[in-house]
Amino acid sequence: MFSYQQLKDYCEAVFKGMGCSDEDAAIVTEVLLAAELHGLSSHGMLRVKDIYGLYKAGRINTKPNVRIVHESPSTATIDGDGAIGIVAARYAMQVAIEKSEKAGTGWVAVRNSNHFGIAGYYAEMALAHDMIGIAMTNANPLVAPTFSVSRMLGTNPLAVAIPADKQPPLVADFATTPIARGKLAIMGKKGESAPLGYVQDADGVPSTDPDIITRGGAIVPLGGDYEHGSHKGYCMGALIDIFSSVMSGANFGPFVPPQVPYLPLLDKSVGDGLGHFFGAMRIDAFRTKEEFKHSMDEWIETFRGAKPAKGQDRVYIPGDIEREKRARIMVDGITILKAVEDDLREVGREFSVEL
Amino acid sequence: MFSYQQLKDYCEAVFKGMGCSDEDAAIVTEVLLAAELHGLSSHGMLRVKDIYGLYKAGRINTKPNVRIVHESPSTATIDGDGAIGIVAARYAMQVAIEKSEKAGTGWVAVRNSNHFGIAGYYAEMALAHDMIGIAMTNANPLVAPTFSVSRMLGTNPLAVAIPADKQPPLVADFATTPIARGKLAIMGKKGESAPLGYVQDADGVPSTDPDIITRGGAIVPLGGDYEHGSHKGYCMGALIDIFSSVMSGANFGPFVPPQVPYLPLLDKSVGDGLGHFFGAMRIDAFRTKEEFKHSMDEWIETFRGAKPAKGQDRVYIPGDIEREKRARIMVDGITILKAVEDDLREVGREFSVEL
Repeated sequence: MFSYQQLKDYCEAVFKGMGCSDEDAAIVTEVLLAAELHGLSSHGMLRVKDIYGLYKAGRINTKPNVRIVHESPSTATIDGDGAIGIVAARYAMQVAIEKSEKAGTGWVAVRNSNHFGIAGYYAEMALAHDMIGIAMTNANPLVAPTFSVSRMLGTNPLAVAIPADKQPPLVADFATTPIARGKLAIMGKKGESAPLGYVQDADGVPSTDPDIITRGGAIVPLGGDYEHGSHKGYCMGALIDIFSSVMSGANFGPFVPPQVPYLPLLDKSVGDGLGHFFGAMRIDAFRTKEEFKHSMDEWIETFRGAKPAKGQDRVYIPGDIEREKRARIMVDGITILKAVEDDLREVGREFSVEL
Repeated sequence: MFSYQQLKDYCEAVFKGMGCSDEDAAIVTEVLLAAELHGLSSHGMLRVKDIYGLYKAGRINTKPNVRIVHESPSTATIDGDGAIGIVAARYAMQVAIEKSEKAGTGWVAVRNSNHFGIAGYYAEMALAHDMIGIAMTNANPLVAPTFSVSRMLGTNPLAVAIPADKQPPLVADFATTPIARGKLAIMGKKGESAPLGYVQDADGVPSTDPDIITRGGAIVPLGGDYEHGSHKGYCMGALIDIFSSVMSGANFGPFVPPQVPYLPLLDKSVGDGLGHFFGAMRIDAFRTKEEFKHSMDEWIETFRGAKPAKGQDRVYIPGDIEREKRARIMVDGITILKAVEDDLREVGREFSVEL
């Protein structure tokens, strides 16, 4: 168990050791720790060693020149210059917010980037500006389209944050698959079988083997199978891939470069690095702030008042669970798996940083 | 079986009979027939009698003053003045396209509208302008949030159309539920049971009764149950509801006014009518048109080249099925259910229009 401050001090020192500026080190640290506070440890401290490995292999640029390469009043395209994805993404979301201040909305596509951590972080950046925030990214291909066995899409998440007044903001942050890859890996390590509707084997037959994706299988899109609308989950994942890649000039689908150092770069490339897409929308570009926020409060209160199903205590608003978790973890501290802790100490030694 | 022209002549005359301008009658006709050409008969000729009934009840305005009530360089909010939803929606999408010409993107929220027919029609309007088109709407509440038994959301569809070069455009148009209401109704009429994962009963217990929504049950969000990610489908439906209502000032979720004349207006209202949301994004606001279209062709070719699962012939790109259906129906003609044909003749008599 570590306090937020302990991990913050450790991470900032390590990323500075890798050559990051003070500002970039602080940003990367903040976003990785935001994942831990959300209980999404697959996007938190686990990533430090991956980023370190990619840095050592020359596959990540810790002194990037992140810059706008194309723009219009409400849009921009950004070249991430091979940065740690978090650095490129945060810059891009700031540009989206600036565009939105003037044009009402701002939309930014990013290419030549890497894994950006937790999508919700960037969406939430918009809230302080009385804007709706949107963030999405493509990711390493593990998901087969409906009717296919080819791994063509990542678990491609979408995050949207919407401000309210007296109520806390609504923050939706979800992958476009029934299950995250990390949860499958945990089931596999525990020797458990997966419920039907998560994965399929190399022939496209539904499987309960959580490790099947290491043997030619694939994760299925949200919906599970065609009868239950997996083509709709496939549409969602495809749209997020296209917004993150075709818009920006990043690699799409099967060509997204691996985000771990132990997997080699792919032979074929159809663009630059991995891609993201961000949006910021001023709420007063549609109604007065007061009207919007009052109406959003009313929406949240109405949905929170929905009748729970038998055996359930309450009905959640997107963001409720994570917000409550965050408050608890900030007090209790952050639990790190022993193996991850060992990794952190190993990386720390390289830069004479103690945990 | 009817030809496109027969139904076009009939519809235009009937809507003019209801007081629509020549232009509005032509638009409503075109969008209803677009649904028939997509094989989506629930959004086609079936709607003529509903619109007529709402018109007779004074719940639809056939001479509306659809107008912008709030705007910024890249946004507008539109009051539909109680119009047939198609009339308000088409105007709104045109405004989104105009905004996009100047600002790079255009985003339009609509309130005080009604059922807008097929979402894909509006998204596809952007293609001729080398823009990405986006359309969404809220709808009558039939869907319960995860862990709830209350019908809070419609089947809230999202449509996105993306231009390519040599390849046909990608057109995704999908509801955020596993199944459409119309398909459940057909199962019920045939005496079939529904697969698990479509609906639940009044206690929130999964049900195979396709008519359960008429007895306190609800449709579940895409994903089916919490274990398979229905909270992600709930997020999607909720976001589409908020964009369509809180942004514009329309009624949200449970307060969306019924779109059929035999259901009375609700006692409580939290806004004006039903709402939609539209977007148009100039592709050259992100990259040159040539780069974008070349990359989109490559995306489509790559995904079309995915290996089919055992027993499948091919892997589809969103829009393939509908495009092929449209080409076939344009040649073969449009099949109308006998009951719908009778309805059309009955409405036609009122205006001395023969079918």
